[in-house]
Amino acid sequence: MLEELKKEVYEANMMLPKYGLVTFTWGNVSAIDAERKYFVIKPSGVEYDKLTPEDMVVVDMEGNVVEGKYRPSSDTPTHLELYKAFPEIGGVVHTHSSYATSWAQAGRDIPCYGTTHADYFYGDIPCVRCLTKDEIEDAYEKNTGLLIADSFKKMNKDVVAVPGVLCKNHGPFSWGKDAHEAVHNAVVMEEVAKMAYRAETINKDIAPAPQELQDKHYFRKHGANAYYGQN
Amino acid sequence: MLEELKKEVYEANMMLPKYGLVTFTWGNVSAIDAERKYFVIKPSGVEYDKLTPEDMVVVDMEGNVVEGKYRPSSDTPTHLELYKAFPEIGGVVHTHSSYATSWAQAGRDIPCYGTTHADYFYGDIPCVRCLTKDEIEDAYEKNTGLLIADSFKKMNKDVVAVPGVLCKNHGPFSWGKDAHEAVHNAVVMEEVAKMAYRAETINKDIAPAPQELQDKHYFRKHGANAYYGQN
Amino acid sequence: MLEELKKEVYEANMMLPKYGLVTFTWGNVSAIDAERKYFVIKPSGVEYDKLTPEDMVVVDMEGNVVEGKYRPSSDTPTHLELYKAFPEIGGVVHTHSSYATSWAQAGRDIPCYGTTHADYFYGDIPCVRCLTKDEIEDAYEKNTGLLIADSFKKMNKDVVAVPGVLCKNHGPFSWGKDAHEAVHNAVVMEEVAKMAYRAETINKDIAPAPQELQDKHYFRKHGANAYYGQN
Amino acid sequence: MLEELKKEVYEANMMLPKYGLVTFTWGNVSAIDAERKYFVIKPSGVEYDKLTPEDMVVVDMEGNVVEGKYRPSSDTPTHLELYKAFPEIGGVVHTHSSYATSWAQAGRDIPCYGTTHADYFYGDIPCVRCLTKDEIEDAYEKNTGLLIADSFKKMNKDVVAVPGVLCKNHGPFSWGKDAHEAVHNAVVMEEVAKMAYRAETINKDIAPAPQELQDKHYFRKHGANAYYGQN
Repeated sequence: MLEELKKEVYEANMMLPKYGLVTFTWGNVSAIDAERKYFVIKPSGVEYDKLTPEDMVVVDMEGNVVEGKYRPSSDTPTHLELYKAFPEIGGVVHTHSSYATSWAQAGRDIPCYGTTHADYFYGDIPCVRCLTKDEIEDAYEKNTGLLIADSFKKMNKDVVAVPGVLCKNHGPFSWGKDAHEAVHNAVVMEEVAKMAYRAETINKDIAPAPQELQDKHYFRKHGANAYYGQN
Repeated sequence: MLEELKKEVYEANMMLPKYGLVTFTWGNVSAIDAERKYFVIKPSGVEYDKLTPEDMVVVDMEGNVVEGKYRPSSDTPTHLELYKAFPEIGGVVHTHSSYATSWAQAGRDIPCYGTTHADYFYGDIPCVRCLTKDEIEDAYEKNTGLLIADSFKKMNKDVVAVPGVLCKNHGPFSWGKDAHEAVHNAVVMEEVAKMAYRAETINKDIAPAPQELQDKHYFRKHGANAYYGQN
Repeated sequence: MLEELKKEVYEANMMLPKYGLVTFTWGNVSAIDAERKYFVIKPSGVEYDKLTPEDMVVVDMEGNVVEGKYRPSSDTPTHLELYKAFPEIGGVVHTHSSYATSWAQAGRDIPCYGTTHADYFYGDIPCVRCLTKDEIEDAYEKNTGLLIADSFKKMNKDVVAVPGVLCKNHGPFSWGKDAHEAVHNAVVMEEVAKMAYRAETINKDIAPAPQELQDKHYFRKHGANAYYGQN
Repeated sequence: MLEELKKEVYEANMMLPKYGLVTFTWGNVSAIDAERKYFVIKPSGVEYDKLTPEDMVVVDMEGNVVEGKYRPSSDTPTHLELYKAFPEIGGVVHTHSSYATSWAQAGRDIPCYGTTHADYFYGDIPCVRCLTKDEIEDAYEKNTGLLIADSFKKMNKDVVAVPGVLCKNHGPFSWGKDAHEAVHNAVVMEEVAKMAYRAETINKDIAPAPQELQDKHYFRKHGANAYYGQN
């Protein structure tokens, strides 16, 4: 079942080592089908150079494996909660990419210092709090997804305009309309995290980019008046 | 038309991923023909590994596309203003290369700390201010070019001796006598940005290289008394 | 003798350049046989791209070479002491990997700032003191192993839960149940060292990850209740 | 003439891009013949991927080209002075490698923070002063060599034990018994510069490695009692 989606998810997973976002098996990509009845995700702990499209695992919206010879990623319950909370998103990525994870360990939002950031993320990339002891001990991965969903609602952030988040002391999640776009946003987040890290070292008194510049770049690429690219 | 120039511009564009200056489609190179009636530029948002010489877009000096199946780079009006302001330059490059963009985000000129810098850039590489709200909202890319041109005139900087600039909260532009030299200068700027970043961390009390050393290295490679290389 | 083990040790040594942990010959991997009578180790100073499985050296538990045409690694007495002190470990690695060595030069333990660390190392990765003048001048490499063993006992650290250490002004050692796992842990240590370095720069007031999060991630991958991967 | 030496120098030059020490043509390697009558050096400004052994230039001890279709490296007079001052050395390298050049721009000696450094460089790697205006304007490259030679004599440093130097606001030179060893030392200097940079960031109160540890590692690899490697 879902052979096309498995292939897409497989290919999106293989972009992670290609773009240098993973060491060993520290990443996973999923995508949900059009009716939002099932999603397809990387199996847990399988090495990228041994992965095939057939290894992808199909999971239903209660988190049950409905097809696949492997266990799904241990982060599956997080992906599930994100799909349930955000009907706008079709693909989800988790990595331990080096710079984004460093910001997560530092527990800080990534400020928008320039147009590279503004082209894809509207405003800061938020870093949500660590889970509490209770949240960690019982249903940790599910609670991670619930916390992200809850935080975006409280911050009144649109997941389409801010397609990623940092989880404190853990690492980044990103998403998009499909698996490919979700990985694309993971690459952007890593680049943006890298440049913000360096920019703060170069100038201790740095300030975020002016709001009008952020608006210009974001809406140059998104929405009704976008004029970047060929569409 | 301009088949030779298209090939040159294509090859110069392909140097950007080769030298690690671009992620995805975040860069563009153009070059102007000898009569300065047309320039050739990368299409907007087309991936590097799919690019061909035929995809290059020909634009006239009013910014109209005169040949090409794609839209030109969204930064085309910036390139156009640079060609109009500076008859000495034949090629222009824009990237979001990581270290140069970090300096742009930090809003600082890159000081000349050594001979690597002095070999190609005479004095600081300036960082021009952010555009105002009005400049951003109306003809943003054109105003970026006008601001660079205006700033170089006010600073009394020679674009041949200082073949690049940082735009605050945005990133670097560089140029040269042709597309190849413009990309060469983009690579130099990235290297120089990287070493200046590290040098300031190593020594908080760092000072620029003595003027006589800057002069020596710059004029070893440029002008009537140059003696570097085979010409 | 021990052809299978030689092949394993050879392959584990070849992972060092693959994962970017060595420059030139600055690393060595060993593994001990099941009866703990002999261990197999890389020859000293032989370049990786000339190495073959047959070049591996077999050493007994008094440190005598029992087979092999080359001298064993100059760090052989350190490996030997680690095998003698810790019957739980089957493979040992030493490198001068860049970030881990920088922490060793700085003389600091690597704090556990996040789940990447907690997934493999339970708590700080300790940095043991420099050897004394006497310890250095007489049996330096043996004393390095004795110091590591003694330090883990004094700190009451379990070598299975903390599969690596930094030696001050020197570099990292890591270990595991076999040569492959020992190298895996060396890669993790380098990644963790890199992210801790950056995280401290991003936030001067950074604190370690909460204990409950460290517990969760460590025991998600280790022990009776582990549920990561396919076993 | 000197076909064997040309091949050695060519191969040593090609190690520079292999080990990531050069961008474009920013590096050059030379070696002197056994009778110390001629040395062979890279031509000026020729790209590495077009270089052949036949392109190497033969220069005599007055600095005259005696064979070769190209001009020799513009740094030839520096190489010449080093060969004249130090009969112990057979090969010389100059690069603008990124970390070593950053230390040179910062104008600081690289302290010996650990055994990676001590294995190859005995004590600090010195950074010599900038040339004066007069020294720069008249015979700049020759004066660079004279200053290095003079500084090593004043500091009472042995060029065999300290096979490299930083020139303030410029970059590193290194040397060895032949071209290959000189490049090897250039790679070491870059690694050591990188780790010292990071170690100082990790610990502001860092101190050099104890002298006894520096002695141990240096003499483990050098001199009559060396026991590293296969000789």
